[in-house]
Amino acid sequence: MNYLSGTEDISLGKLRDTLIRLEDTIIFALIERAQFSYNEPVYKAGLYKYKGCEDFEGSFLEYFLQESEKLHAKVRRYQSPDEYPFTERHLLPDPIIPAIEYPQILKPNDININAKIMEFYVKHIIPSLCAMDDDQNYGSAATRDVTCLQALSQRIHYGKFVAEAKFRDPKDQPKYIEYIKARDSKAIEELLTNKKVEEDLLKRLKRKALIYGQDITEAGDFTLDANLKINVDLVVELYEKWVIPLTKEVEVAYLLERLDN
Amino acid sequence: MNYLSGTEDISLGKLRDTLIRLEDTIIFALIERAQFSYNEPVYKAGLYKYKGCEDFEGSFLEYFLQESEKLHAKVRRYQSPDEYPFTERHLLPDPIIPAIEYPQILKPNDININAKIMEFYVKHIIPSLCAMDDDQNYGSAATRDVTCLQALSQRIHYGKFVAEAKFRDPKDQPKYIEYIKARDSKAIEELLTNKKVEEDLLKRLKRKALIYGQDITEAGDFTLDANLKINVDLVVELYEKWVIPLTKEVEVAYLLERLDN
Repeated sequence: MNYLSGTEDISLGKLRDTLIRLEDTIIFALIERAQFSYNEPVYKAGLYKYKGCEDFEGSFLEYFLQESEKLHAKVRRYQSPDEYPFTERHLLPDPIIPAIEYPQILKPNDININAKIMEFYVKHIIPSLCAMDDDQNYGSAATRDVTCLQALSQRIHYGKFVAEAKFRDPKDQPKYIEYIKARDSKAIEELLTNKKVEEDLLKRLKRKALIYGQDITEAGDFTLDANLKINVDLVVELYEKWVIPLTKEVEVAYLLERLDN
Repeated sequence: MNYLSGTEDISLGKLRDTLIRLEDTIIFALIERAQFSYNEPVYKAGLYKYKGCEDFEGSFLEYFLQESEKLHAKVRRYQSPDEYPFTERHLLPDPIIPAIEYPQILKPNDININAKIMEFYVKHIIPSLCAMDDDQNYGSAATRDVTCLQALSQRIHYGKFVAEAKFRDPKDQPKYIEYIKARDSKAIEELLTNKKVEEDLLKRLKRKALIYGQDITEAGDFTLDANLKINVDLVVELYEKWVIPLTKEVEVAYLLERLDN
């Protein structure tokens, strides 16, 4: 939301600032989740029956996420072009407050890969992030999960803006058009990729996780390695294995539709 | 919630660890809020009419907080002895999932000073924390406000556990009983106060705000002073002027009721 205030102009530099700021949000959210145990029952279907919602068959996390998204939909979160719900749109209520006019930067599209985000988060991130234990703090865990998932979703779907900005570059546009017409996803992905930016990102991420993850002792001392609140390698792996590839998937999917009417 | 898993035993050392960890939560939450502008309309009554809730007369923040708390009440957040709602209890729905048995550490009491927390947060913290501007990100601002308020409320109401632990110390208990019977709030407060702990806290807090508030640049470099994401002095002031005194207020109020039946 940060980025989108009142301008139709998009520059890659500004977009990158937003993405860099979102790294902090994601790392803070993961650190906050990591203070609670894994709490396996949170992710299993059928832990509870929900009064008033008896036919709900998902996990506790899915229930809590869906109900949070219903509230957020009411205050128009999902009208913002950088916010994507995990809940299917037809299950969400309409906004109960007036709409905001957002600048129309993106070509209209229905790309939403939150199902994939939920899957890697629950299967691969949470079990490595948290102590494999049950501390009964299911509500606390689910609340932090929602924050993590929403930040990851926003980050990954920002790929649409990145793709749009890259497409608008006059130098590359003819090539993009050629590859899009040829349905050549691989060539589009290669043209989108900037290896140097990715390498810098991973270095910066490690640095951030080391710094923000420090456990600062009673007297205010700190040391860079001892007692980290988070597994630094996991944060790097999260981006390397999931965030970067899925962002590219969004970018490519968006560009493949870019010339449609 | 961290602290309360399955034991009736409370030690001051363990409580302090919880409070120290909550400092990180509070600083992260403030940093996340500070990326958005002040957005004055969020705090003014009557910004919107809320469909289905037309008689609601509070601010947008109060509406969003109340609706968030209704959801959290359904998943039994406020049955936990360290969670206190801002919304009046009779307005909150009953939990829709089975209750957890918490150890009965505290004497039953109705102490809840969230109205004061809301007041200092909106009047004194938010205007100093954020750019005095309007970026239209009202939903993003309110979402972060809810996180800040809930963390501050939990921290301040932990005073009940601190007071209980101090009261249980056999060395001091006769004095506490004497002062409670004499309704001598001032003497109770003095007995509760540990100047050295408070000084260490403020030093540690400054260190944390400096470290977590760093803006780590594109290449991964960092410097301690440049480009902080948060006003360090404000974080220290928040604790000095509000968190520490209000925690003591909770401690004293709790102890004044401690001998009642």
